[in-house]
Amino acid sequence: MNKKHIVILGAGYGGMMTAAKLQKNLHPNEAEITLINKNDYHYQTTWLHENAAGTLHHDRTKIKIKDVIDSNKVKIVLDEVKCIKPEEKAVKLQNGAIHYDTLIIGLGFETATFGIPGIKEHAFTIGNINNARLLREHLDFNFASYHNELEKKNARLNIVIGGGGFTGIEFAGELANRIPQLCEEYDIEKAQVRIIIMEGAATVLPGFDEQLVEYAMNSLESRGVEFINGALLRECKKDSIVYEKDGKLCELPTMTTIWAAGVRANSIVEKSGFETNGGKVEVRCDMRTPDFEDVFVIGDCALIKNQETGRAYPPTAQIAIQQAETVANNVKASIHQEEMDSFTPNLQGTITSLGNNDAIAEVFGRKLFGWKASCMKKMSDNRYLLKLGGLSLLMKKGKFNFFY
Amino acid sequence: MNKKHIVILGAGYGGMMTAAKLQKNLHPNEAEITLINKNDYHYQTTWLHENAAGTLHHDRTKIKIKDVIDSNKVKIVLDEVKCIKPEEKAVKLQNGAIHYDTLIIGLGFETATFGIPGIKEHAFTIGNINNARLLREHLDFNFASYHNELEKKNARLNIVIGGGGFTGIEFAGELANRIPQLCEEYDIEKAQVRIIIMEGAATVLPGFDEQLVEYAMNSLESRGVEFINGALLRECKKDSIVYEKDGKLCELPTMTTIWAAGVRANSIVEKSGFETNGGKVEVRCDMRTPDFEDVFVIGDCALIKNQETGRAYPPTAQIAIQQAETVANNVKASIHQEEMDSFTPNLQGTITSLGNNDAIAEVFGRKLFGWKASCMKKMSDNRYLLKLGGLSLLMKKGKFNFFY
Repeated sequence: MNKKHIVILGAGYGGMMTAAKLQKNLHPNEAEITLINKNDYHYQTTWLHENAAGTLHHDRTKIKIKDVIDSNKVKIVLDEVKCIKPEEKAVKLQNGAIHYDTLIIGLGFETATFGIPGIKEHAFTIGNINNARLLREHLDFNFASYHNELEKKNARLNIVIGGGGFTGIEFAGELANRIPQLCEEYDIEKAQVRIIIMEGAATVLPGFDEQLVEYAMNSLESRGVEFINGALLRECKKDSIVYEKDGKLCELPTMTTIWAAGVRANSIVEKSGFETNGGKVEVRCDMRTPDFEDVFVIGDCALIKNQETGRAYPPTAQIAIQQAETVANNVKASIHQEEMDSFTPNLQGTITSLGNNDAIAEVFGRKLFGWKASCMKKMSDNRYLLKLGGLSLLMKKGKFNFFY
Repeated sequence: MNKKHIVILGAGYGGMMTAAKLQKNLHPNEAEITLINKNDYHYQTTWLHENAAGTLHHDRTKIKIKDVIDSNKVKIVLDEVKCIKPEEKAVKLQNGAIHYDTLIIGLGFETATFGIPGIKEHAFTIGNINNARLLREHLDFNFASYHNELEKKNARLNIVIGGGGFTGIEFAGELANRIPQLCEEYDIEKAQVRIIIMEGAATVLPGFDEQLVEYAMNSLESRGVEFINGALLRECKKDSIVYEKDGKLCELPTMTTIWAAGVRANSIVEKSGFETNGGKVEVRCDMRTPDFEDVFVIGDCALIKNQETGRAYPPTAQIAIQQAETVANNVKASIHQEEMDSFTPNLQGTITSLGNNDAIAEVFGRKLFGWKASCMKKMSDNRYLLKLGGLSLLMKKGKFNFFY
């Protein structure tokens, strides 16, 4: 029997869940499965803002691939994808190359700086374990430095978050909880620290329910977060930023700018010659690329439009996890030469955390805020862990601090 | 009755212990006592290397002055001493001035860089809580940065300790215990990290028993510490050091140089016009300055020579604490117009920690090493706490991890 080789690129929400499903649904005689990832761990991107703020240790966010994937059923290759050659059915890696019969691309997102000078050099991002813990340490280092300089620098204590979307707001919420601890640790007055959210639109969380946005802003403001809306970041320097507001250029001293205003699909996809739309592959309804029968795309690299509104679905963990189910089914169907499923997202809503014990949510058509919304968020996170790795993973990494 | 005003400058080992003694020995009607210190806490200088390495939190090292000193008996002024004017019996502070009848100078030490270029700008020191926790955060920040750079920099993982005296050796011992934790935290191979002790003399811990020095070097080497002896630091740059060995100049990439090779008495003493010898006041046998009847000097700013050898006693916590007893007695004697005591150091020995559970010691004429010496060290630290603040302070800050 000629075993098919299924290759999954990336162990993010989509790739990891696809691998977990396939190891259950396919018999080892039917196919060989390989999961390629840079690190030996999967991480929950949606928890990284907590690691970056220092309110949750990154070990909680990391999930060892081997804790979920049975290496007898799925071969795990630790390597970095450099390029995909769909015509040759091959993937070029940092340390070699691999051939596939069926490919699943789950390579996630990368930062988009829109050409704003200095972002790449001086701004921090919250995109993976490495840069999340770097940001945490950078904050600590600045607070620790403050009293060691004769001339006290406000730039060390001003923290600017570029972008008032989900990431920016969620990070601000955690940071607002973290700052009092940092102040205590380094003998700094809380009033000296500024957290500033800078948003280009007239309001933060554009698209979210107005009432809930107001709730979020009040919650954050009560903990010392400032908002500068309608402001565009023009340059990020080592110890300041320049922004434009009402047609005027302003400068603000800061050594900590967090760029949370732009992500794009991993550029490897575009560079590998796939037909893309804004960097993403607009997949067929069975999640395959329009131009290759044997390539599936999942998660942030896949573009799916809402048939009714014509607008693209947002690149969320929720949708990536749902796609994994369809992709795993369709990979199995292709091996069994059965008909493939169509993917239909089942939008259950959006929950934005505002720090521990506070959140806003639009779920099942209802608005929630405060403790209830925060519980919903933790429960939704826990549900993913249960789905991915069963009870043992849930017990190991779950969030049970509902009353904390 | 004309109450005398006793002013104590600095809440280090000497000043703090003097204040604690005086509040017991003098009746509030006899004198007014003021303790002037920059911070509202005293800290145990001999524990700072642990805070700097990150093996002990600095809250354990800090002792709130109010936990030991009764503010009904001793007025605590939080201010920075700028200059002493002994002719005017006055002390100039950052925010004012104060008059005294009797002055006790316990202003401690500062770093001496011997004019080596770059030390002041780029090297770290272990001299107070602020710079100890800065060093801890700097280490964390470098380890966190390592995986965020495309071009991996060894300079981030090379740690150079300039000086193989007590401070350098004790810090290296703690660091050797800390590095495996840092490696785990930031996914770095332990073999990539270097700890290098650079010493100008032919051996580290000059003056210490040869056999014990060998023990110390073996203990540290077994945990990955390297020694470069007979090497002189010539320049400290942002990401490297230049040193001279066997007449040749060598460069070593490092972003972390810890300068542990030179301290001197607080330069305020010299600048204030006291007669000094190498920056210190060679005090009379009753601990007063040679030129002023009403000024005592204690701790690192005081110079006392061993009558037999003619050599100065080292500036240790042990001696400062003993001096405090004499100074407190003599201040009381001067108020009662009684005769003053002479100070005679009671050298009980030296213990050098090599990290948790290891140490070398020469005490009561005996050589000790390993667990026994480490126990002695902790017991000696605990005895100080008991002496300073009684059982409650000992229970709060003591070291009881004898078997850990």
